[in-house]
Amino acid sequence: MLPFKTLLVIDRNSEIAVYRQLANQMVSLINKGTLLPNMELPSTRSLALSLGLHRKTIMAAYNDLVAEDWLESVERKGYKVSGHLPAIRPRSYTARSHAGYSGKAAFDFARLDNVPLLPRASTGAKVIVDDGFPEKSIFPIESVSKEYKKLMYQSISDSQAQMGDIGGSAYFKECLSVFLNDTRGLNILTTNLLVTRGAQMAIYIAASLIIKPGDKIIVSDPSYFIADATFLHLGAELIRIPMDQEGMQIDAIEEVLKENKIKLLYIIPHHHHPTTTTLSPQRRSRLLALIKENNLPVIEDDYDYDFQYQQEPYLPLASGDHGGNIIYIGSLTKVLGTNYRLGYMIATNDFLNNALKLKSLIDLRGDMLMEGTIASLLQSGDLARFISKANRLYESRCNYAYELIKNELTDVVDFVKPQGGMALWLKFKDAYPLSNILTKASSFGLEMTGSAYHLGDNAKHNAIRFGYASINEQQMDFAVNIIKKITGA
Amino acid sequence: MLPFKTLLVIDRNSEIAVYRQLANQMVSLINKGTLLPNMELPSTRSLALSLGLHRKTIMAAYNDLVAEDWLESVERKGYKVSGHLPAIRPRSYTARSHAGYSGKAAFDFARLDNVPLLPRASTGAKVIVDDGFPEKSIFPIESVSKEYKKLMYQSISDSQAQMGDIGGSAYFKECLSVFLNDTRGLNILTTNLLVTRGAQMAIYIAASLIIKPGDKIIVSDPSYFIADATFLHLGAELIRIPMDQEGMQIDAIEEVLKENKIKLLYIIPHHHHPTTTTLSPQRRSRLLALIKENNLPVIEDDYDYDFQYQQEPYLPLASGDHGGNIIYIGSLTKVLGTNYRLGYMIATNDFLNNALKLKSLIDLRGDMLMEGTIASLLQSGDLARFISKANRLYESRCNYAYELIKNELTDVVDFVKPQGGMALWLKFKDAYPLSNILTKASSFGLEMTGSAYHLGDNAKHNAIRFGYASINEQQMDFAVNIIKKITGA
Repeated sequence: MLPFKTLLVIDRNSEIAVYRQLANQMVSLINKGTLLPNMELPSTRSLALSLGLHRKTIMAAYNDLVAEDWLESVERKGYKVSGHLPAIRPRSYTARSHAGYSGKAAFDFARLDNVPLLPRASTGAKVIVDDGFPEKSIFPIESVSKEYKKLMYQSISDSQAQMGDIGGSAYFKECLSVFLNDTRGLNILTTNLLVTRGAQMAIYIAASLIIKPGDKIIVSDPSYFIADATFLHLGAELIRIPMDQEGMQIDAIEEVLKENKIKLLYIIPHHHHPTTTTLSPQRRSRLLALIKENNLPVIEDDYDYDFQYQQEPYLPLASGDHGGNIIYIGSLTKVLGTNYRLGYMIATNDFLNNALKLKSLIDLRGDMLMEGTIASLLQSGDLARFISKANRLYESRCNYAYELIKNELTDVVDFVKPQGGMALWLKFKDAYPLSNILTKASSFGLEMTGSAYHLGDNAKHNAIRFGYASINEQQMDFAVNIIKKITGA
Repeated sequence: MLPFKTLLVIDRNSEIAVYRQLANQMVSLINKGTLLPNMELPSTRSLALSLGLHRKTIMAAYNDLVAEDWLESVERKGYKVSGHLPAIRPRSYTARSHAGYSGKAAFDFARLDNVPLLPRASTGAKVIVDDGFPEKSIFPIESVSKEYKKLMYQSISDSQAQMGDIGGSAYFKECLSVFLNDTRGLNILTTNLLVTRGAQMAIYIAASLIIKPGDKIIVSDPSYFIADATFLHLGAELIRIPMDQEGMQIDAIEEVLKENKIKLLYIIPHHHHPTTTTLSPQRRSRLLALIKENNLPVIEDDYDYDFQYQQEPYLPLASGDHGGNIIYIGSLTKVLGTNYRLGYMIATNDFLNNALKLKSLIDLRGDMLMEGTIASLLQSGDLARFISKANRLYESRCNYAYELIKNELTDVVDFVKPQGGMALWLKFKDAYPLSNILTKASSFGLEMTGSAYHLGDNAKHNAIRFGYASINEQQMDFAVNIIKKITGA
């Protein structure tokens, strides 16, 4: 039942009779779509009670409205809105007018015209080649859902559980910091760790604290497009550094630093997004020295660290001697899948405290159930075992994809085998404009949703990420065959 | 095993012998705490293999380090880091040095010194009186966890599931918009709806799109402290409007509008936070007219709408004729508890599209499992039934708390019975400074974590929120008794 008491407001000082005020307002509710055709109305008795009016006043209003064809009286049932309104046709739910929100905002606000939205695959796709997401079928659903339910019951009796922890629950941070120290050669305490909703929130927060409009920052060419959009939204001017097979060119960074006041360096040293190249150990050492010399703030985005196929992993910059200048950002999303968005930021305690405060304005409380669930997987070692298993699978899929594309598409694409991660970076030759290929592929049931860098400022790249981790060999065969067919290779 | 290949970098052009470079770097790893006392080292054979050096080089380094007391050789087992290092004492895990992050950041960044953090109760508390959170024990854990698990399995075969929906999954938005239209007299489409992580993210995003540094905005006196902090962080100047028992004083708003360019009005019409008063229908009508006349952008924060104890609910401003100026923000957190942070923003489509883009820079993907789970509760009607049940419980607790405090603390606090919500607003008389009461209460096992407005700019209020929804009658008795004892009432 609609709240007629607030919908119908009577002005006793008006020159219009109360019953007619009522009738007019009901017509307006019908025209707005709040009262729909054939909707039953409250009895005169109950509406009178609810509005504090005499029942005869309501009857007078209803009688007028029946006379005007707005209402119908139904024998022994009372009144309903007419099913055959003269002025308006019966409308389905979605066609209801929505007076308040149907137009445009009449006030000024910021337009983010240059922020690109993530692509979505059409629902009819036979095979989706994504940006580099994990294989979902190996996820330990049983143990996760069991733990999740257990924690829901536990939280009933936990008097602290309503409070949440803006920066991550203490137990999760403890387990995560041990995991990060073990796997990444870090030496952090939980006071250096902020849990965020995915790595993206960490990037947004760190950049917001550092960048002021007009500041110059260094990024790679190309660089992760959502990070680009974040920095541009905050008013930064991007200085782009070329990439080659050893990662970002440190000579070029050094030159830029000599001639500019640089507020931030954004770098993805492992399996760079989008190009998949890894910063070489030699460049890593030189860059660390540069960072320390210049007190250069750095966001090290290490979204993909856990998937390295060489015998011993390359450590992050953050494990080196950087004088507290590196803000290290990572995520468990590439391990667990996009359903589980646990990211984190590692920084000196003073920076982290301010990041925590900004986080409280954006996302007041953490996801305690999810944090608790994953903490138990970290603690038991299940997560480490799951990562090993995933690594073996992804490495074999990487090898398969590499051989397949090398054999079938060598005249169509240039690419290099990555040292880890979940995607290849396919640079289509100029003769094969990516826009055409994507459109045609879609018509054959192949959707390629990986980050593509062939439009606008990035047009020179004509390249796309080919995620191999989430598709099996048959699906890769299908995808490569379609591309081959389209390109006539 | 640590990744020695990246930890130990050899410079073949150096004048220092390779074996001595190795030894020096291992000392540095010990000093940094990467190598801990008694840690076993790789055999000379395996380290040689891994570094691509001759085994004799590794032996020379190890021998030097043994001679210098950094390492010990263990018969038939190889080498380990000494347990009795001369220069450094054995350290527990938490006392490890963390070279990169132990100091302060050397670069400039924004300090959010005025952002207050949420209070946390001490773990020893017997009773916690919170800010107004739901009772956890009535939450339908079984059906939620069952649905959650079902969705995890479904998402394996759902090819779209990796993509996520920045603004909320289509099905959840459909169910939620029906629920909001039914309960709040709205007429929105899913294109008017953005799902956020709690209402706070919606407030942050809406305010970020509207406020530029130096802009004047209108808030109540007092107003929700985290919203205040958000607006101040964005550079707004706050103009405060007095509250009385009918809510914000509309006359005062009208005066301010005449004399200032106002960029935003922030209002909580139902059970205002912190004072719990509800905007009267008369003021509601006047305010709607003002909003339309002035094209005044409004954030209507309706966090508590679902809990109204009068016979018919007061509708939100957003259900009225506001010309698209109202950005309506709400949350399911007050229904479901802080474990489930699903908030939303309703606005005209053009505003919403920009909000969606900003959201993508902050939180790239929604929480698909949680959205799907709650969608099924909305669809089945279970959520509506759960809200009814909670309403009956909270209304009876509200009545109990009201009578109890009126009888026991009438000389200590001023307060008014609210028309809904989950908390009372206890204004302590001047003779009873809140800081003293909170400290003493804590020593008796009573923690009051509700928003308190007795410090800094808000010092004039000497008042705190007393959440009654999450505590039973015995717990309320306990709390009131302690306050009575402390105040000598």
